[in-house]
Amino acid sequence: MSALETLITEFARLPGIGRKTAQRLAYHLLQQSRDRMTALAGALETVAERVHPCEGCGQPTEDGTCTICRDPRRDASILCVVEEPSAVAVLERAGVFRGRYIVLGGRLSPLDGIGPESLRVELLDRRLQEGGVVEVILATNSSMEGEATATWLQQLLAPWTEVRVSRLARGLPVGGDLEYVDGVTLNHALTAREALR
Amino acid sequence: MSALETLITEFARLPGIGRKTAQRLAYHLLQQSRDRMTALAGALETVAERVHPCEGCGQPTEDGTCTICRDPRRDASILCVVEEPSAVAVLERAGVFRGRYIVLGGRLSPLDGIGPESLRVELLDRRLQEGGVVEVILATNSSMEGEATATWLQQLLAPWTEVRVSRLARGLPVGGDLEYVDGVTLNHALTAREALR
Repeated sequence: MSALETLITEFARLPGIGRKTAQRLAYHLLQQSRDRMTALAGALETVAERVHPCEGCGQPTEDGTCTICRDPRRDASILCVVEEPSAVAVLERAGVFRGRYIVLGGRLSPLDGIGPESLRVELLDRRLQEGGVVEVILATNSSMEGEATATWLQQLLAPWTEVRVSRLARGLPVGGDLEYVDGVTLNHALTAREALR
Repeated sequence: MSALETLITEFARLPGIGRKTAQRLAYHLLQQSRDRMTALAGALETVAERVHPCEGCGQPTEDGTCTICRDPRRDASILCVVEEPSAVAVLERAGVFRGRYIVLGGRLSPLDGIGPESLRVELLDRRLQEGGVVEVILATNSSMEGEATATWLQQLLAPWTEVRVSRLARGLPVGGDLEYVDGVTLNHALTAREALR
């Protein structure tokens, strides 16, 4: 395989990138200066070398523990359990959560061969053992697998009777139009409707 | 900037990849084994090191001249001038052209600061000087810039009165539905209609 073919194949292995897009990316980089390609290659190698899961919460970090786990102003009594690091990024950008995270690194998905042993649930367990946890928010996605993962976590948390367990509310997106909301969400929004008075 | 941020920024500089997609790609690679990242990095570096424009036609190659230019079975009397190497890939996949190529490496686009000096028109000139060229097919895209580039090339070719100059036909895509064809294409398809009898 030629060098260009190898690069196209590597690009095409990325999610959401088909063969045509992979070709476009490779040809685009060829048109740029060599430095652009070397910069991307270098960035990849640096990440491969330096970034690993935080010992505390599992999100990617260049240190032993991430900045959130090290931040003494973060409330260690509230844990937010998410599937992926991208969820942490979203929550941090919104700036709405001041507790700490547990990043599972995926969701239960038997069809993809992802069972409990693939998820970083031991981090959650360790935090609970250490004590001081008042609430665990199950912030897995609202997909089928995300819900299954939340149910499974809920069972795991059953022995910790003094710990509050919650789930992110599901309903209409704020600013969203009823017309574009699917039936399942609408059903949930109706069932879980909030009393105004 | 953290290693991960640098990688996301580099991904986001690629065409058609926004910040969100760049994040998704970076997080995806983090979830894979380190080897996947190193493989992509390696592929990029190999291309940056080894691939350069063919001395004959300008398309990317790892040798001095590309396999098409070296192939004695290719008809050197017909040149097909394209904007990008991707066009060569498309034509080769279709297997419909047995001549040789000139890859300009872009199109005239004054707004993007791409003038005649940015295009590899000297390769076309050299081929014409060497003699034996019977026809030049202007296969630049059917976009505004592509058409302008074709017009400009036509002027450049004016002195070569014995060389036939042609342009790829424009019209309905084969198998295409009239309903989905834009007005300009439809107008051209009507004006350039092919007599059946």
